[in-house]
Amino acid sequence: MNIVQPPPLSPELIARFKAIVGEKYAVTDEADIAPYVTEERNLFHGHSPLILRPGSTVEVSAICKLATEHRIALVPQGGNTGLVGGQTPHHGEVVISMRRMDRIREVDTASNTMTCEAGVILQNAQQRAADADRLFPLSLGAEGSCTIGGNLSTNAGGTAALAYGVAREMALGLEVVLADGRILNDLSKLKKDNTGYDLRNLFIGAEGTLGIITAATLKLFPKPRAVESAFVGLKSPADALKLLEISRDEAAGSLTSFELLADIAVDFSVRHGIDVRHPLADRYPWYVLMELSSSRDDARATLEAILGRGMEDGIVDDAVIAANLSQRSGFWKLRDEMSAAQKPEGGSIKHDVSVPVAAVPDFIAEANAAVVKLIPGARPVPFGHLGDGNIHYNVSQPAGGDTADFMARWHEVNAVVFAIVLRMGGSISAEHGIGVLKRDELPEVKDKVAIELMRSIKAMLDPLGIMNPGKVL
Amino acid sequence: MNIVQPPPLSPELIARFKAIVGEKYAVTDEADIAPYVTEERNLFHGHSPLILRPGSTVEVSAICKLATEHRIALVPQGGNTGLVGGQTPHHGEVVISMRRMDRIREVDTASNTMTCEAGVILQNAQQRAADADRLFPLSLGAEGSCTIGGNLSTNAGGTAALAYGVAREMALGLEVVLADGRILNDLSKLKKDNTGYDLRNLFIGAEGTLGIITAATLKLFPKPRAVESAFVGLKSPADALKLLEISRDEAAGSLTSFELLADIAVDFSVRHGIDVRHPLADRYPWYVLMELSSSRDDARATLEAILGRGMEDGIVDDAVIAANLSQRSGFWKLRDEMSAAQKPEGGSIKHDVSVPVAAVPDFIAEANAAVVKLIPGARPVPFGHLGDGNIHYNVSQPAGGDTADFMARWHEVNAVVFAIVLRMGGSISAEHGIGVLKRDELPEVKDKVAIELMRSIKAMLDPLGIMNPGKVL
Repeated sequence: MNIVQPPPLSPELIARFKAIVGEKYAVTDEADIAPYVTEERNLFHGHSPLILRPGSTVEVSAICKLATEHRIALVPQGGNTGLVGGQTPHHGEVVISMRRMDRIREVDTASNTMTCEAGVILQNAQQRAADADRLFPLSLGAEGSCTIGGNLSTNAGGTAALAYGVAREMALGLEVVLADGRILNDLSKLKKDNTGYDLRNLFIGAEGTLGIITAATLKLFPKPRAVESAFVGLKSPADALKLLEISRDEAAGSLTSFELLADIAVDFSVRHGIDVRHPLADRYPWYVLMELSSSRDDARATLEAILGRGMEDGIVDDAVIAANLSQRSGFWKLRDEMSAAQKPEGGSIKHDVSVPVAAVPDFIAEANAAVVKLIPGARPVPFGHLGDGNIHYNVSQPAGGDTADFMARWHEVNAVVFAIVLRMGGSISAEHGIGVLKRDELPEVKDKVAIELMRSIKAMLDPLGIMNPGKVL
Repeated sequence: MNIVQPPPLSPELIARFKAIVGEKYAVTDEADIAPYVTEERNLFHGHSPLILRPGSTVEVSAICKLATEHRIALVPQGGNTGLVGGQTPHHGEVVISMRRMDRIREVDTASNTMTCEAGVILQNAQQRAADADRLFPLSLGAEGSCTIGGNLSTNAGGTAALAYGVAREMALGLEVVLADGRILNDLSKLKKDNTGYDLRNLFIGAEGTLGIITAATLKLFPKPRAVESAFVGLKSPADALKLLEISRDEAAGSLTSFELLADIAVDFSVRHGIDVRHPLADRYPWYVLMELSSSRDDARATLEAILGRGMEDGIVDDAVIAANLSQRSGFWKLRDEMSAAQKPEGGSIKHDVSVPVAAVPDFIAEANAAVVKLIPGARPVPFGHLGDGNIHYNVSQPAGGDTADFMARWHEVNAVVFAIVLRMGGSISAEHGIGVLKRDELPEVKDKVAIELMRSIKAMLDPLGIMNPGKVL
């Protein structure tokens, strides 16, 4: 898609936008704008004349109406933690930062729902659910700063998707402001509602290109009585897959996380993470971080049964069960630091792919071979959610090599990895989305009719192309 | 919506449609057409010059192309078990019966998926999963004749939605033929795929008005090791709600069914059902049929703990746990016969509503009072899925009264019941859909912008209005 560089906003129009949110909540100073137009990895740099920080759905609606009237392009933004450049104003668009809309409108423990505005930080939503003796299970590395609106717009996955599903499956209803300012009120608390077409799933995962999610009714779950975690050393992804089968057989729905970690990923995290320690005495080629959550007090016994069967079958070489909350946090800290810990090792070319669960071992083996053949010395750092078939297949530059040279080969490496993914019936974006990072690859990997339908939907909901232009399509 | 009566099909056009599926699979004889244009309750009667029984997706595509070319309206049909007239050709449309497409294309136990064509009977899908030591959990009264395509097109709910979700949540991917004959191939096996807009949820629950689902990739689950059922007598829906809370607390995700049944519903079923027996020695005002499914062997102990707490708290008056499979089948037979058993009692005005779970007791009390005030002697027969807030709020005519007089007040009764539902933030169609039965009420109960969006989607995907016209919108 060609993006036409928008003309500079007239001072008069800026004043009208400002008037909607109030002077105090309109950012025009370059230094104040900076945090909204760059992201933490420094991979994407945008620019914008104006950041608007609306405080209500009505203000968002007024902004969209004015933008429609004057064909002003908008980029909605939550916690600015996205990994594919979806939240960045690459072409000087006006940014709508949703962070001020951070009210939890209602917690309904009888119906097990919670209604959050888009700007609620994920961790705050989790905490509020916990305070009400409930669980809001969405959990990911950026939970301290990402927002519910961003989580839904990107259909976030995370570490609990195995048992609870992705963000899409946690939303019962949405409130959405459309490009022309109309407000869709679909904040249902109902688990079953077959009155017409499903609208919420159109906006979930659309990365802000079809409208702006301003609030959502989220599902709450019973708070588990017992949570037990183990860190397991093993020989191969194939053995991890066998352990997953055993775990499902023993624990079924109470298996809430099953993360596969390559030794090099753990090593980076231990060496570069702050306060990260290796949970096992020895190193193993692969590890699994697994967690069981149960409403009964049997999680520990089940976990021990799983590990016992794994040892009997010769697939578990060593394992440690977290003895207390602090040890459990330690396991997760190691996992959460994994992305950041790649930075000190130089350039990293990242992939967020999924393949059918059974194909993960072959995928990793084939991708490793192909990447190292392409760039001798390149260091694959695969880790991720084995239970969902979702691997963060990252590749660090050869030790001591030139970073710029390596990073220049991003698309070459992508091509090699994506070819294997597609051959296996996989997805080139399992949970991070398309944004700008994978926009140009999308038509090559997606069903032709699917792309046509996506374009029709975009044209229907955003005929002027002002909603997050140049993203996804 | 005004439906223009289509002109009679020319013999030449009939011959061209026949040529697509083959003479053998085109039905034109009036007697042979009859079963496709009426439904079992005799509530809807349609007519059609031609029933087409395609054997492949390519044939469905060719039918749609020809229909687009000549603006011929089509009604897709599965097992013809729908309850809102969605599958009936009310205006002489051509019917596409999907029942011949009944191949299970693949069962993948490693990825826990099953790819079924639209015409696969639900019970056959369940059986095939069971043969592979897996569970396909969708389950409803009509499972012996309804089809996967119909289940998805109507987003069926059923008795296991509490734990496993509705049909929407069981589909990972779809194959769909669009109105113009294009084939959308989105038969993904992936649990996580964030490459663009969500397309499958547009077609799921659209009741065949946006395209024809020809195949689906469905999720499989571990087969539970232990299933335990109890039939419980209690005083009120409020006590049933308390028992639900206790059950969730003790059993969490292993609580797979929680059906609330009014005494009169049970009584009808016992009196009019074949081989139906009352599970308890005495009668109680209300009953709960509950079921636990567990991967561990603890379901019986958990069920006993739940019932024990219920008795201690004075909310369970009597209960029996199924001692064997035959007793368990007996409980479900009583439940499954409940709809049919209303017929011998004369006219029945039906509602398939949902309200927030916590509001169910108030809803039933208020609806009962309002209905009896409107029609003295009318007999409310509420039953349904309490855990989903989904009540089949049916009303039988006064004993010995005139059936036609009573049935003539269908919309009056609807209006009274729906007003209460809407006041409580509920839905007038929880799981059966809109079809023609509730089409005219939809704009009155739905958000205005939602209706506008639905119309835009319809116009985008079916600009000629040939796909199941007059349904939903």
